[in-house]
Amino acid sequence: MPDVKLTTNQYGKAENRVVRVTRDTDRHEVRDLNVTSQLRGDFEAAHTEGDNGHVVPTDTQKNTVFAFARDGVGSPEAFLQRLADHFTSEFSWVTGGRWAAEEFGWTRIDDHDHSFYRGSPEVRTAVVVRDGDETTVISGFYGLTVMKTTESGFVGYPKDKYTTLQETTDRILATDIATRWRYNTTDVDFDKVYDSVKQIILSTFTQGYSKALQHTLYQMAEAVIATHPEIDEIKFSCPNKHHFLSDLSFCGIDNPGEVFYAADRPYGLIEATIQRAGSETRDAAWVGIAGFC
Amino acid sequence: MPDVKLTTNQYGKAENRVVRVTRDTDRHEVRDLNVTSQLRGDFEAAHTEGDNGHVVPTDTQKNTVFAFARDGVGSPEAFLQRLADHFTSEFSWVTGGRWAAEEFGWTRIDDHDHSFYRGSPEVRTAVVVRDGDETTVISGFYGLTVMKTTESGFVGYPKDKYTTLQETTDRILATDIATRWRYNTTDVDFDKVYDSVKQIILSTFTQGYSKALQHTLYQMAEAVIATHPEIDEIKFSCPNKHHFLSDLSFCGIDNPGEVFYAADRPYGLIEATIQRAGSETRDAAWVGIAGFC
Amino acid sequence: MPDVKLTTNQYGKAENRVVRVTRDTDRHEVRDLNVTSQLRGDFEAAHTEGDNGHVVPTDTQKNTVFAFARDGVGSPEAFLQRLADHFTSEFSWVTGGRWAAEEFGWTRIDDHDHSFYRGSPEVRTAVVVRDGDETTVISGFYGLTVMKTTESGFVGYPKDKYTTLQETTDRILATDIATRWRYNTTDVDFDKVYDSVKQIILSTFTQGYSKALQHTLYQMAEAVIATHPEIDEIKFSCPNKHHFLSDLSFCGIDNPGEVFYAADRPYGLIEATIQRAGSETRDAAWVGIAGFC
Amino acid sequence: MPDVKLTTNQYGKAENRVVRVTRDTDRHEVRDLNVTSQLRGDFEAAHTEGDNGHVVPTDTQKNTVFAFARDGVGSPEAFLQRLADHFTSEFSWVTGGRWAAEEFGWTRIDDHDHSFYRGSPEVRTAVVVRDGDETTVISGFYGLTVMKTTESGFVGYPKDKYTTLQETTDRILATDIATRWRYNTTDVDFDKVYDSVKQIILSTFTQGYSKALQHTLYQMAEAVIATHPEIDEIKFSCPNKHHFLSDLSFCGIDNPGEVFYAADRPYGLIEATIQRAGSETRDAAWVGIAGFC
Repeated sequence: MPDVKLTTNQYGKAENRVVRVTRDTDRHEVRDLNVTSQLRGDFEAAHTEGDNGHVVPTDTQKNTVFAFARDGVGSPEAFLQRLADHFTSEFSWVTGGRWAAEEFGWTRIDDHDHSFYRGSPEVRTAVVVRDGDETTVISGFYGLTVMKTTESGFVGYPKDKYTTLQETTDRILATDIATRWRYNTTDVDFDKVYDSVKQIILSTFTQGYSKALQHTLYQMAEAVIATHPEIDEIKFSCPNKHHFLSDLSFCGIDNPGEVFYAADRPYGLIEATIQRAGSETRDAAWVGIAGFC
Repeated sequence: MPDVKLTTNQYGKAENRVVRVTRDTDRHEVRDLNVTSQLRGDFEAAHTEGDNGHVVPTDTQKNTVFAFARDGVGSPEAFLQRLADHFTSEFSWVTGGRWAAEEFGWTRIDDHDHSFYRGSPEVRTAVVVRDGDETTVISGFYGLTVMKTTESGFVGYPKDKYTTLQETTDRILATDIATRWRYNTTDVDFDKVYDSVKQIILSTFTQGYSKALQHTLYQMAEAVIATHPEIDEIKFSCPNKHHFLSDLSFCGIDNPGEVFYAADRPYGLIEATIQRAGSETRDAAWVGIAGFC
Repeated sequence: MPDVKLTTNQYGKAENRVVRVTRDTDRHEVRDLNVTSQLRGDFEAAHTEGDNGHVVPTDTQKNTVFAFARDGVGSPEAFLQRLADHFTSEFSWVTGGRWAAEEFGWTRIDDHDHSFYRGSPEVRTAVVVRDGDETTVISGFYGLTVMKTTESGFVGYPKDKYTTLQETTDRILATDIATRWRYNTTDVDFDKVYDSVKQIILSTFTQGYSKALQHTLYQMAEAVIATHPEIDEIKFSCPNKHHFLSDLSFCGIDNPGEVFYAADRPYGLIEATIQRAGSETRDAAWVGIAGFC
Repeated sequence: MPDVKLTTNQYGKAENRVVRVTRDTDRHEVRDLNVTSQLRGDFEAAHTEGDNGHVVPTDTQKNTVFAFARDGVGSPEAFLQRLADHFTSEFSWVTGGRWAAEEFGWTRIDDHDHSFYRGSPEVRTAVVVRDGDETTVISGFYGLTVMKTTESGFVGYPKDKYTTLQETTDRILATDIATRWRYNTTDVDFDKVYDSVKQIILSTFTQGYSKALQHTLYQMAEAVIATHPEIDEIKFSCPNKHHFLSDLSFCGIDNPGEVFYAADRPYGLIEATIQRAGSETRDAAWVGIAGFC
């Protein structure tokens, strides 16, 4: 055997589907989470020797998630911090970890007290990374598909021998917004800021003329950071969902921007990070998050 | 070779992703469809001899779908009927077929003229089956997830040696509603009836106490058929999405209906057809629709 | 309320993931099934009155599936028949039902006694429909993706104003084979016939020149029915997975059938049923199977 | 607007589905790739000003991928390096990028010259990260599901008030292997090493007694690094796919390790990096790869 060493590692229970109903009054509230708990610390012997003396079972992590939900969930960010506090204080060799949640949003049917439909198009996300005394909270969402049917174009790009794309000043712009933003504090009303950020992103999407998806994403980022001093950094990873104008000339029909073919693959993929100037970075907290550069 | 014969068959182009923007005014309208066209008729020689003399290419079917969209789409049901009329009149050996669409619903962002998000949780479906002079229209939707957090129970069932389930008069009832209904006419304002049926189903879900998912589905069906004389038949295929009360007694915590584990598999699966008494049946039109008995 | 009636209905527990290890010797055997049990019979009162007196709980059906697996599974078709026998004999009002399974195939790693990888590309399927004294067994598979890189063409088809497709005598033919076949008896070595049918279909795919996917599917069907007297009917539902020759002329490069773009949607969809001449039909047994006409 | 700055960013065309047939002789060869090209460099003005003067269109990147495939593909790693060389040399402001591919493996049917089925259970992956003069190649695969039906246990773990798991010395161990390894050179026969690493991982899985998935993954890593001096680092991200022994005592049946319930969620999730001692790190090359810590 060569001389090898264990470097980064984490383990836990993924995708614990916790539904918490608050029924203190007849008007019930629902929080519907998909929680992942992963521990970091001294797990060397488990890997090298099969000595599980430090391996808090993933089953125990699951039980803890459900037991903690009994005391209420609150925002996903707050719930994950409670889990982080617990595992790092209960087990001396657990020096940190990563706790993540997806939240699915429910809407009342006819404003009914206890009947709901899953009405939110997007999935809300939250990540808490704990490293010793340092806590980083990253929130976000994915799956919010948006489209503007005009006021979008793409011109002025470099051409080479492989270029066939025609310039256009009127096209459909569509994307599935996936975004994550990092807080510079844990003292946040996470539910309230979430609603605000989502609204800013949607509203910015509608405004003005988009010269490229890069341009639009940057404007969204600027608006979010301008409005929210508690946010230092925001990332986007967004497909350019191509809607190709259908060429109907084969049968003598024109098509003035009305009939489109919505393509699946390939798609453009635009990823960018925008940071508050002069703010601290926390690159380690982003490791392992798919599809964000 | 044994003596074999070709019996039922159909072919065509599936999942043509047509997005139609109506931009006659600054306030754009969008219809976003996934259209499948399948032809039936005399295609014996194609199968037995490789003689394609009757095989209208699937590529031509695709082109036709996009060309027809140029004249506007309207409701998916109306659009599919135009396709059915075309193919059965244009090609003498095409005696019928099956045309289907999914529709994805877009909502204006901030009531904006040309910016939208994909806001509808459910996918609308439409099927037109043409057989000679007979046209059958089946509409529906899938993917509408609903939950009631109380006023649901399950008692009074038979017990045998394999029974471990405990009776309960207070549980979560959750399902993904998938439904299809059959019209007895083609003279329908399909968009308007769609909205009405969806609303009836949602409202019925909220009302009263559910003794079982079967009970609730039947009530939905009754209400739809009572309200809509143009509908003769409705089918449901709905999972009972189990939310199991988390047993926290292992750590001395009670759980009075507040913390649930949302299970993936297995799940209950309830399927039923409810028909207007005395109405005609059209069983052949339902063939090939997945998951409805 | 209008006069409505409950017609077809069935219910049960879907997707019970049963893994059965036979470990009588050191050389273990694995059967990995996804079993769905659905009962039919007199369930009128459950729907109309919420009277569950006849509703054998789906939870009980699940328990029964796992308990029956203790006695061994054997072929999925045999296992499903045991379930059908049980439920129809145990509960007088259960007059039939539908039992279905998917089977995932495992392959030994290095011919090891108890270590396996999931090596089968296709998912095997089995359905048993019981209606009173009548039992129908339908077997099949899906997910077997095949491709031939030449010896396929498409010519001689009708042209109209919407036709743009060019004839070709050399193209890629690719499809995901989904097929189901119906036995005329229950006295079958189901595992052995399954292997044979799969091999016949694969071998037939390789042979000769394909004039169209319809042509190839028919040849597969003929060969299966010719070889297996216990099979009376076979259905295919197969996408024509288009591989478009990449047009590289924009940069002055030819492309003699070497570089292809594999498209997702739309795709051709070819569905056909081939039956042994003079054999009985059992159309009711096919109801609810997705995507087969 | 606050003072914000663009930091990391990349963009390109994702999921170009290229199928390359080599048909120099009657015995065809197939390479089936899903290629993503993303550029990095000076794209500041595109984001901040909507100035696309540097934005090589994603459409051009797609065209380039297909045009380059005309000269043959070879290994995915070699193909991606050719793309990296091209874009960084052709456009002065493109200082690096990330090129990635998935490869789908085809197997000959009956050793036929031009007929294949998609036989590889796993998807092969390759990533080339170029940063100025530095090239990092990371290869891997995902989707290889393995199971051992005995010789696995889990004991000796810490217990607390949330622990309910029972120790066991005989359980099923199953996982979907997802792994990526980093080369310390680009002078590699990538196809040959790929086959070797896959075989080492599979064989190691079969050997001896597994004290925990962590233990088994570490052994795999050790064996890979010991055998391949050109590999400095390997990561695993593997679910512990729980197979719970079905408790059949409710009906008086024992279950000596034969009937299992295969659960979906939650699942254990074990992630680890093992590095050759004393070797260089390249953490930046791993950014954005999902699910590896």
